[in-house]
Amino acid sequence: MTQEALFEQIKLKKSFLCVGLDIDLDKVPTAFQNQKEGLFEFAKAIIDATHPYAVAYKPNLAFYETYGVKGWEAFEKTMQYLNTNYPNHFTIADAKRGDIGNTATRYAKAFFEGYGVDSVTVAPYMGRDSVEPFLAFPDKHTILLALTSNEGAQDFQYSKDGDTLLYEKVIQESQQWKHADRLMYVVGATKAEALASLRKLIPNAFLLVPGVGAQGGSLHEVAAFGLNAHCGLLVNSSRSILYASQQEDFAQAAANEAQKLQIEMEEILVDKGIL
Amino acid sequence: MTQEALFEQIKLKKSFLCVGLDIDLDKVPTAFQNQKEGLFEFAKAIIDATHPYAVAYKPNLAFYETYGVKGWEAFEKTMQYLNTNYPNHFTIADAKRGDIGNTATRYAKAFFEGYGVDSVTVAPYMGRDSVEPFLAFPDKHTILLALTSNEGAQDFQYSKDGDTLLYEKVIQESQQWKHADRLMYVVGATKAEALASLRKLIPNAFLLVPGVGAQGGSLHEVAAFGLNAHCGLLVNSSRSILYASQQEDFAQAAANEAQKLQIEMEEILVDKGIL
Repeated sequence: MTQEALFEQIKLKKSFLCVGLDIDLDKVPTAFQNQKEGLFEFAKAIIDATHPYAVAYKPNLAFYETYGVKGWEAFEKTMQYLNTNYPNHFTIADAKRGDIGNTATRYAKAFFEGYGVDSVTVAPYMGRDSVEPFLAFPDKHTILLALTSNEGAQDFQYSKDGDTLLYEKVIQESQQWKHADRLMYVVGATKAEALASLRKLIPNAFLLVPGVGAQGGSLHEVAAFGLNAHCGLLVNSSRSILYASQQEDFAQAAANEAQKLQIEMEEILVDKGIL
Repeated sequence: MTQEALFEQIKLKKSFLCVGLDIDLDKVPTAFQNQKEGLFEFAKAIIDATHPYAVAYKPNLAFYETYGVKGWEAFEKTMQYLNTNYPNHFTIADAKRGDIGNTATRYAKAFFEGYGVDSVTVAPYMGRDSVEPFLAFPDKHTILLALTSNEGAQDFQYSKDGDTLLYEKVIQESQQWKHADRLMYVVGATKAEALASLRKLIPNAFLLVPGVGAQGGSLHEVAAFGLNAHCGLLVNSSRSILYASQQEDFAQAAANEAQKLQIEMEEILVDKGIL
């Protein structure tokens, strides 16, 4: 999916919501816990319930990988389900991979060709030749970690090289890489004020913003600092949607939560003159 | 496996060789390419041929992940084979994972409990709370990327914060984390001179050194700068062993390559007074 097509979907759905599929089987209704394909079936129910309000889905690979081969089967099925039934939703494999050229190409092939995702999150520590193999795929996107929403972001991402913080350097350097137009960036919502200065470095890039809701970030702050003329934001919400209810009404509760965010987003998009 | 047990194995085998299982099916004898379980069967043949000369095996997850669910089955089988037949060999899942607490715990469980590996490589970009969940597992080890052997290492790892380079900061900071005694570090062999200064920061930690052989690093230089009183080094070789021959004699050729390195290592260990 191209970024232009993603923007079209944002206007159509009046939403820039990404639903994070960080599915913890201990937190879902017991019916799914005892089911052979519970991980996939729960994801399917959430997707079916929330798709009118979301433009993107972000399976978190760790939550599949933790179940071994069965988890990977569930991931594969989830991607097939999305690509077959909701081909206009942007998909993000939240994998945070990062390895040297030869190996990076393998990861990129696995995700882009094998599972058919639109984008993968990638860690920048190993530099250019660990990221460019992902960027080589047309109409696919690489979402580079810049500023994350966790406490540990303080440890290295704010290292100061001259006047430049490491996360700023990651953005500046990576913009010089081949096919940099296929880059997006992870910027945590808990650092909304940082968005304003980042927007000067990358006025056009899409930003994936986790940390709204359960992690304490404010949607309105994120939008105020991060929106650009073609939206340029995907705001992720996971737990508040997935676990809105642990009862039989979980799907309706998830839909309600997603719709609540969609309505807020619509207001923001109208205010900004995008709709 | 504890680090003491690993040192015992190093003395017993007179070797600190780690064999990297970066198996590219395009490069193995055609018999394996056409076989249903070729990835596992080739790994098994390599392990059987090289185990007298190696103390560790390092499956590279990308090379499994690229084959989807089947690849993960091959990884699972390879780990079962190693743990059943060669329980005294140290195992490293070269996965370079890195994510926030909740998610990191999932990855750690998957690798340490699910697949029974002794250690996992982890990227430091997200800081303390992305690594400590791995460190919580007793007798398991977390191998943090410090200075990698690829060209892109220049992009961010040498960022200077005051007088401290980023890779030095990664080491200094991480040594303050809970269960830091369970940390090891990746330090590329192509940067042998950096090993000497790193050894001052971490005199006791084990270092995993890729890049000897195919990538151009010198074993003698690495040993000169990196060895400590309990060896403290695991030197990885992948391609020069795996693809020593593409004919029927590949296993014997792999054994010969591994033995050549083991003999060099034995000389080094004797010179250093460790044997």
